[in-house]
Amino acid sequence: MSEAADWWGTAVSRIEPDVIELRGRPVQELIGQVGFAQMIWLMLRGDLPDPRRAALLEAALVSSVDHGPHAPSIAVARMAITCGVGLNNAVATGVNLLGDVHGGAGEQCVALLEEARACGDTAATVARRRARDKYLPGFGHRFHTRDPRRDPLLGLVERAVADGVVAGEHLRVAKEVEELISPVPMNIDGATAVVYAELGFPAPLARGLFVLGRSVGILAHAWEEAGQGRRNKGPLPPSIRPTYLG
Amino acid sequence: MSEAADWWGTAVSRIEPDVIELRGRPVQELIGQVGFAQMIWLMLRGDLPDPRRAALLEAALVSSVDHGPHAPSIAVARMAITCGVGLNNAVATGVNLLGDVHGGAGEQCVALLEEARACGDTAATVARRRARDKYLPGFGHRFHTRDPRRDPLLGLVERAVADGVVAGEHLRVAKEVEELISPVPMNIDGATAVVYAELGFPAPLARGLFVLGRSVGILAHAWEEAGQGRRNKGPLPPSIRPTYLG
Amino acid sequence: MSEAADWWGTAVSRIEPDVIELRGRPVQELIGQVGFAQMIWLMLRGDLPDPRRAALLEAALVSSVDHGPHAPSIAVARMAITCGVGLNNAVATGVNLLGDVHGGAGEQCVALLEEARACGDTAATVARRRARDKYLPGFGHRFHTRDPRRDPLLGLVERAVADGVVAGEHLRVAKEVEELISPVPMNIDGATAVVYAELGFPAPLARGLFVLGRSVGILAHAWEEAGQGRRNKGPLPPSIRPTYLG
Amino acid sequence: MSEAADWWGTAVSRIEPDVIELRGRPVQELIGQVGFAQMIWLMLRGDLPDPRRAALLEAALVSSVDHGPHAPSIAVARMAITCGVGLNNAVATGVNLLGDVHGGAGEQCVALLEEARACGDTAATVARRRARDKYLPGFGHRFHTRDPRRDPLLGLVERAVADGVVAGEHLRVAKEVEELISPVPMNIDGATAVVYAELGFPAPLARGLFVLGRSVGILAHAWEEAGQGRRNKGPLPPSIRPTYLG
Repeated sequence: MSEAADWWGTAVSRIEPDVIELRGRPVQELIGQVGFAQMIWLMLRGDLPDPRRAALLEAALVSSVDHGPHAPSIAVARMAITCGVGLNNAVATGVNLLGDVHGGAGEQCVALLEEARACGDTAATVARRRARDKYLPGFGHRFHTRDPRRDPLLGLVERAVADGVVAGEHLRVAKEVEELISPVPMNIDGATAVVYAELGFPAPLARGLFVLGRSVGILAHAWEEAGQGRRNKGPLPPSIRPTYLG
Repeated sequence: MSEAADWWGTAVSRIEPDVIELRGRPVQELIGQVGFAQMIWLMLRGDLPDPRRAALLEAALVSSVDHGPHAPSIAVARMAITCGVGLNNAVATGVNLLGDVHGGAGEQCVALLEEARACGDTAATVARRRARDKYLPGFGHRFHTRDPRRDPLLGLVERAVADGVVAGEHLRVAKEVEELISPVPMNIDGATAVVYAELGFPAPLARGLFVLGRSVGILAHAWEEAGQGRRNKGPLPPSIRPTYLG
Repeated sequence: MSEAADWWGTAVSRIEPDVIELRGRPVQELIGQVGFAQMIWLMLRGDLPDPRRAALLEAALVSSVDHGPHAPSIAVARMAITCGVGLNNAVATGVNLLGDVHGGAGEQCVALLEEARACGDTAATVARRRARDKYLPGFGHRFHTRDPRRDPLLGLVERAVADGVVAGEHLRVAKEVEELISPVPMNIDGATAVVYAELGFPAPLARGLFVLGRSVGILAHAWEEAGQGRRNKGPLPPSIRPTYLG
Repeated sequence: MSEAADWWGTAVSRIEPDVIELRGRPVQELIGQVGFAQMIWLMLRGDLPDPRRAALLEAALVSSVDHGPHAPSIAVARMAITCGVGLNNAVATGVNLLGDVHGGAGEQCVALLEEARACGDTAATVARRRARDKYLPGFGHRFHTRDPRRDPLLGLVERAVADGVVAGEHLRVAKEVEELISPVPMNIDGATAVVYAELGFPAPLARGLFVLGRSVGILAHAWEEAGQGRRNKGPLPPSIRPTYLG
């Protein structure tokens, strides 16, 4: 009996009758006391961040919520809600698409920044990487010349570095990469990777945090679509190519 | 310990070291002996169908595999595979959309046929239904005047009725409905509902069987898309509206 | 061409080269300026909440993140991550389970509160509901005698009512229900329903917001499981019942 | 307009008013004429297999349907259906877990067989592989000493080789591997990999076909669970560890 219970043992939460502890803290001491971004940090890492670090995390989450209905994750959630499934199923459908290509660039960029920092020679790291693949995760746009999210995010990190809140090593490396491959600019995945790396999140959690941020946009779009009453929305309007229930 | 094992008790399969029994039959007596459609029947119902019934089920499954990339279930699977997730995740994404609106008409039509049969007065049933909702599940098309899958499926059922393989009650009721609401034709959901109802499947399994059939088309489309090398495919080509990694 | 673009028209976001507007606001004016909970409100409703309302929303989100690995949504995400899928797929798997039964009680409770408020007679509403179903969504526990999340959440609402931040009508009705069916206590779904209803969220968004909150716990558990290195984790340990790759 | 339609161009199906062609064949010529396994082949490859090849494919599909409720894919589908989601969502939840670890061994084994065949020296291939990883995909069991599905599947392939239906090169290599690493036996992923490789399916479709086969068991288990009326089924019974709606 204890064996089966052990199989599901966890350090994340403890639930007993009338007791809910999250990372060792009674839930009633958290409600109304910590913000949602702090709570995310607590659940993922086990400790509570100070307000300055929490604000950096919050800014990165805010910057990730949406990039329009042409992103596959958003489009499929809108299509899903017209097929007669629940709002949770529509959000899950969108999140399911945040894979290596659609949702992995932040994670890959954190790994790149860590590799360059560990190597100590950013130029050598970039050269080594580009010998394999011209594309560097976190850099370059199909669409924006200069992503409007880059400057405010990096500005927040710069202020945090000036105030000794974070060390600034990953920011420095990211800017070196950007200069080395100029004029290819840092994109949103690069800018959030700088935030997450400076805050000490391991690379895979950059994808995890992107999932949390983007879920907001996925939900907002699914909800808007739900209000429009379409049934079985296909990728193209029926006038161009009929969509069918089949 | 036995309590935990009981929690997962099942009559579907028994797995012991070197033993695999499915619905009480050793797997080695099934492999090479029964067809895939028979196996589906066995797993869902516990017994093996005779070849005539299995052939009817097989025809309904064959007729359901695909209705083109404009069906949301197909489109999202194609989009998913370009986002860097596995083939299984792409298929799951498509199947997830076969909800009440996109995948439920067969199930709802079986329920309608059963209601009309139990009532004994198809005209009264249709009138009662249409007072609430003009649309009857399994009837009417946005696209086809006459669905090319209707006649071959109903033809097979008619032959099976003539040979005493199935009773024909649901077929009779379905044709009565079709005549009552003429010229609105029976669609594929209606025709497969006739097959499934004649074979004795409960209504919810009409959706379950549609899931199995449509999974084939979802997989075929995801696989074709995988070979085309697009990344983050949005619903519209970049020339019309740029899609972005964000 | 504009027809296809129109098919994907939205009031949620506007994306042009070098422009990202969310609900009409340039993203660079949001990053570092608004919290994550405010951003959630903005995306779902189109306007920014004042800090007091945002704090209420934040408290409800914080209270929803986790209820341990025995909740199906958490368990399946932990199992998923051991099967060789991405962190996004594991989170999607968990979110997919937040259906009518597992994730719908908050939504159903908002509807109940609105029904009672519109009726003007809570006792009559409760009697009418209980004639159909003894269970009232948002009330009663299988586990906690008094859910530790109830009092802090309701306390925050009470203070907000005292300060004129929210009207308090849904709070009043919820307490009337609780007294009428005493000793069955309000549960977390009821307490968050009070918050969401007081803030003016329509019922279906109570599920949507639960999805956002619970995604945090799902991610935290999937991430913890990922660090433990199990492969193909089944519901029971191999010593009780072997799990197999098949 | 044609540009948008082209974006969704496909060789899998052609849908026009009153016309449904699958891989160039009118659907009405397929219904009642080809079996479900033949249809799967047609959709994935574009041509129809002869009956002997179709029978091999059918046997592999039959052998893959289920390995009990302790397989994560089956367990999560059973849990999903108790959470108030549709049968399609439950099946999707299970399929979503057939990732690299849970559903990828067949695919990896086809790649191994192809590598060994191309190399021309199975022993060298095995040594090279095992220097990196002791585990070879498609070989070895946590549970069965001798998987009861191995012999009937290989027996069918042997007969097909004797009759000139397939070449037998992959079968030969697989048996060489099995002898080289004796007493580690070939498992079901290995045996189905032999079938799929002999039939000419590329490695990734081994996973795709496993998805189609296993979907049957996932559906059967979800359906059985649906009939048992549990709500929010957790991995352990409430007596061992209470499960809660939260």
